[in-house]
Amino acid sequence: MSRSRLRVEWRASLSLVGTVLRYLSVPLAFPLVVALYYANDVLVFAATIVAVVGVGYGLERLDPDPDLGPREGFLMVGLTWLAVAVVGTMPYLLAGTGTLAEPVNALFESMSGFTTTGATVMGSFDDHSKAILMWRQLTQWLGGMGIVVLAVAILPELSVGGAQLMDAEAPGPGIEKLTPRIAETARVLWLAYVGITALEVVLLYGLHAAPPLVGVESLAPNMTFYNAVAHGLTTMPTGGFSPEADSIAAFSAAVQWLVIPFMVVAGTNFALVWRAVNGSPGRVVRDTEFRAYLGLLGVVTALLAGLLFTGGATGLELGSVVPGDAENSLRQAAFQVVSLVTTTGYATSDFAGWSEASKYLLLFTMFVGGSGGSTGGAVKIIRWVVVVKAIRRELFTTVHPEAVSPVRLAGSVVDERAIRGIFAFTLLYFVLFFVGTVFVVVDASRVDYSINVLEAMSATASTLGNVGPGFGSLGPFGSYEQFSDASKLFMVFLMWVGRLEILPVLVLFTPGYWRS
Amino acid sequence: MSRSRLRVEWRASLSLVGTVLRYLSVPLAFPLVVALYYANDVLVFAATIVAVVGVGYGLERLDPDPDLGPREGFLMVGLTWLAVAVVGTMPYLLAGTGTLAEPVNALFESMSGFTTTGATVMGSFDDHSKAILMWRQLTQWLGGMGIVVLAVAILPELSVGGAQLMDAEAPGPGIEKLTPRIAETARVLWLAYVGITALEVVLLYGLHAAPPLVGVESLAPNMTFYNAVAHGLTTMPTGGFSPEADSIAAFSAAVQWLVIPFMVVAGTNFALVWRAVNGSPGRVVRDTEFRAYLGLLGVVTALLAGLLFTGGATGLELGSVVPGDAENSLRQAAFQVVSLVTTTGYATSDFAGWSEASKYLLLFTMFVGGSGGSTGGAVKIIRWVVVVKAIRRELFTTVHPEAVSPVRLAGSVVDERAIRGIFAFTLLYFVLFFVGTVFVVVDASRVDYSINVLEAMSATASTLGNVGPGFGSLGPFGSYEQFSDASKLFMVFLMWVGRLEILPVLVLFTPGYWRS
Ligand SMILES: [K+]
Ligand SMILES: [K+]
Repeated sequence: MSRSRLRVEWRASLSLVGTVLRYLSVPLAFPLVVALYYANDVLVFAATIVAVVGVGYGLERLDPDPDLGPREGFLMVGLTWLAVAVVGTMPYLLAGTGTLAEPVNALFESMSGFTTTGATVMGSFDDHSKAILMWRQLTQWLGGMGIVVLAVAILPELSVGGAQLMDAEAPGPGIEKLTPRIAETARVLWLAYVGITALEVVLLYGLHAAPPLVGVESLAPNMTFYNAVAHGLTTMPTGGFSPEADSIAAFSAAVQWLVIPFMVVAGTNFALVWRAVNGSPGRVVRDTEFRAYLGLLGVVTALLAGLLFTGGATGLELGSVVPGDAENSLRQAAFQVVSLVTTTGYATSDFAGWSEASKYLLLFTMFVGGSGGSTGGAVKIIRWVVVVKAIRRELFTTVHPEAVSPVRLAGSVVDERAIRGIFAFTLLYFVLFFVGTVFVVVDASRVDYSINVLEAMSATASTLGNVGPGFGSLGPFGSYEQFSDASKLFMVFLMWVGRLEILPVLVLFTPGYWRS
Repeated sequence: MSRSRLRVEWRASLSLVGTVLRYLSVPLAFPLVVALYYANDVLVFAATIVAVVGVGYGLERLDPDPDLGPREGFLMVGLTWLAVAVVGTMPYLLAGTGTLAEPVNALFESMSGFTTTGATVMGSFDDHSKAILMWRQLTQWLGGMGIVVLAVAILPELSVGGAQLMDAEAPGPGIEKLTPRIAETARVLWLAYVGITALEVVLLYGLHAAPPLVGVESLAPNMTFYNAVAHGLTTMPTGGFSPEADSIAAFSAAVQWLVIPFMVVAGTNFALVWRAVNGSPGRVVRDTEFRAYLGLLGVVTALLAGLLFTGGATGLELGSVVPGDAENSLRQAAFQVVSLVTTTGYATSDFAGWSEASKYLLLFTMFVGGSGGSTGGAVKIIRWVVVVKAIRRELFTTVHPEAVSPVRLAGSVVDERAIRGIFAFTLLYFVLFFVGTVFVVVDASRVDYSINVLEAMSATASTLGNVGPGFGSLGPFGSYEQFSDASKLFMVFLMWVGRLEILPVLVLFTPGYWRS
């Protein structure tokens, strides 16, 4: 295929990927500082910084003055997450310790980080230095920041899979009107993202350090400053990585309660969050998606709390729920439901050992997803709202074939193209989930790895939806390490395609995208 | 709710259900004759005939001159399959033998018959008389006839879930133009349906009886006249019931090869079949859906034959496949693929014991379904064709947001409302499948019945898609008897809602349907 026949200026896209890689050197200074502080893996991060700057400059030289149309935009977005995940393996590979020293494992962990999935292939957490574990946390925070910018500023411009709706519901003037340029929008979102992260770090560490200052016992004995920062970095991106093998079960009930509202905020449309902190909380409360989101969290939590309160979940390795303990039942239910609906993936109980009914309730929540314009993954609340309204419309027009019956959101008519895009997205999501489950089961049987279908379903739903944990040995305190390389690479694909809302990645695989 | 507030003339609908019940007395004469011939269960069928005539007349008196609008049409269709399934339990209950003497089992078997599903809750086949087993076969033939009329003559008029497309592809003048009245269309279809059934009976019995007439060995030693009729009755409706516990594995390879083309015809649009026998086979060959259907059957058969030829499927109770036996591999692959794609549900091998890869390939085929306007169930080829085209259009418009890009079938633009309906249907289908699987698993765990998720998936896909067999103990030579009553009743609902294309039944559950 000669260059002239190609319709895509791939050099422009690669050049901007190069810019992203070069900028990656700035946050890499943070794990370098951690490495210096703990005097471990210093050279690893120094070398990585040199490499990303070098590779970044090299790519930028392909097109010193890149001009991006929509096609180049798709390519750039798809390639950015791939490139960042690939160079993100360097610290794991250079450190060379534990299971992450394997290239496929390193790629899995890196993609899981930058897509804010949180599925891990780590074996023992003790195999890795504090700096490596902090880098792992940081990849999620950086990935989440990228997703916020993508979801609020870029995808709506490209009107992909109903993404134009993601901001339609933000009441009042659209965020673009307030800040006319994408760069300015991005800056505002960064500020909110950094600010809320900082607030969580302060509060988490405050639970640890403040009570002793007034002479009472610490409310979070093991929430050190390192841990406060580490978890601050993975809540806002709905990431779910933790440097503790026991996730949030390692911490006190006070910490667990505190993390819940931060996860709820992380799963909220960032345009709404920005409005709320800018003094319009009333508009937030009237938002259709936000109400559906809170309503769903409330109903599912109540159901699950009821199941736990009456039946309990005893005999678990971690986080057993004693029947009849109201605070415990409510906390475990709320934490797990919020964690899975928002696709964060933290856990305070080994829910893989809960009753069948509870487990399937949790499997459902893995498909919900956060709000549009949040860092949450999966299908997303706004799409479900539109799907439900569109199916009700379909039932209505079945009886009234002559009726013109538009779908409305907050009083405005939703464009039929957006509805079509949402249907296509949701159906593709289920097809990928279904095909993915079969791939995982058949591949497992090929290599004689014993997995049941529920575990395979949870693995697929969890990676495609960027949730993180699954059931069985992939439970919240488990690992994906035992899968074959083929399955791991397939899940890397699922995390990538799921994170980027499927359609923008799939178009790259159509011949029509590349030629006129 | 006072009668005046109701917008639906439910008396008119019930009156026509009564007419259907009264007419049911005519085909009931057939099992009565069988009962007389074998001198067994004669009173059972005599009493059933009296009952359906009595109940039918009673319902007809509710509205002696019923006038049916679209709303009453939906209610009549939904109630007809329910009412027929309920009165269809009478022979099983009156005979009072075997597992079918249980009311819930009788309802399951009867609904499975009239919806042409073919899932069974029978234990030993020897518990039941020849007349009862023939009645069971006949319910499928009658149900299939109802579905042909519904799919070709009624649903397209109601434009439900894209059903208006079912005939759009029939080349040349639409069948309605050739036969302007629904009653006339129905008569023509009856003739084709009866004719092809009769042809199959003759050919099946011919394999048995003809060779000895010229002095050679019978090609089908156990294909008695009774068996020829019994299987003729369940092929055209893609029903899959058999009076033999071993289904088609009980018969010779010649019988198995002969049944395959009849299943293929049963899964073809009946308007096309009617055209082919009326001298326009060329038009049939150019039909988009028909080509997709044959292409899919060919590709999946080739894949599966390859898996069987290289790996085999040995050690089965019935129908083992020896690796390297080309005829056997091809026959077993073709038979099972055609049986499951067309949603017939016959089997010549215990495919529940095949390799994982083969089994999942078969699970996929359970979602395909026959052509629109056939007796096949599940999603149906025409919908998949439209879904694939619509998703490709979505990918195209993602890159070309300004492009107007209609979906075309055979050169004509497909109405966007039909596309919307098809998306809504397909998504609802997957949601029902997913929710259904969870219901079955959770209910099984409630009653301590051990079932794995694959088996539950197959049970849901098979009943919702009116396929019949599943995996595990629900395999082609197994039974659904071990499920709890709750699960059985839920599957009765799935068979009912799946057979009637979901939306026409769901509208009955919306308040807007009942009031203005
Ligand atoms: K996550
Ligand atoms: K069937």
